[in-house]
Amino acid sequence: MKGITLTPLQLIEGEKGNVLHALKATDAEFSSFGEAYFSTVNSGNTKGWKRHNRMVMNLIVPEGCIRFVIIDDRGRSLEVFETVLGPTTNYSRLTIEPGLWVAFQGMGEGVNLLLNIASIPHDPNETDSLPLDNDQFNYNNWNSSIL
Amino acid sequence: MKGITLTPLQLIEGEKGNVLHALKATDAEFSSFGEAYFSTVNSGNTKGWKRHNRMVMNLIVPEGCIRFVIIDDRGRSLEVFETVLGPTTNYSRLTIEPGLWVAFQGMGEGVNLLLNIASIPHDPNETDSLPLDNDQFNYNNWNSSIL
Repeated sequence: MKGITLTPLQLIEGEKGNVLHALKATDAEFSSFGEAYFSTVNSGNTKGWKRHNRMVMNLIVPEGCIRFVIIDDRGRSLEVFETVLGPTTNYSRLTIEPGLWVAFQGMGEGVNLLLNIASIPHDPNETDSLPLDNDQFNYNNWNSSIL
Repeated sequence: MKGITLTPLQLIEGEKGNVLHALKATDAEFSSFGEAYFSTVNSGNTKGWKRHNRMVMNLIVPEGCIRFVIIDDRGRSLEVFETVLGPTTNYSRLTIEPGLWVAFQGMGEGVNLLLNIASIPHDPNETDSLPLDNDQFNYNNWNSSIL
């Protein structure tokens, strides 16, 4: 999907603990630093839909397991992108350009932790929201297993 | 201690999960973005001592519980600073200027996760290391409970 980049990241295991890469200023996907914040999402719960109109998101899941669904409604037909991120399943960075709709679901039994390294600080005026079960997207695949 | 700033952060609880602030480009403690990476530290294990000579660290613990000990050996006598960070005990950001010695210990039974938002990308040439049990610091308080 145009506007999405999935970049595998290094997870270096050690005796006392691990080191997990996230984002370097020299990475191609880095645009600017505006704010970093975490979201947790409880097992089975889904947060969304939200669209950022100016923010570039860099999403990393260092703990647990989170399913992401991204919808592009800019063309003549809807495009849907799905992936599951987490340190044990798929330790990758998901970069999302502005203009795409995002929802994410907690898949792990414990803490599902998401870091967003955002290109601009939080600004409620640059986001749009839609209910999870809106007729426009008609997305109802949340109960499927894609692991 | 000169070179240390501890800043309480917002943790906003929600029905589906929480939002945990980390760092904004507009925060007084922000200098520049070089790299963000995670370290985990197993329960009872301690990583250190390490000194960064150019990097400013912004340390956040979004999961688990981590004890930090910082030593300043730049003066005539050693100065020691201790704190414990975690989302349930003390959700704060620890900003550490270059030139201080840092060690940290996993205190939680589960995952102890540390995010460092660093002012420069990782560079092994700007760090110094010392063994945990060196005679110079003679720090042996790792088994105390300061919770």
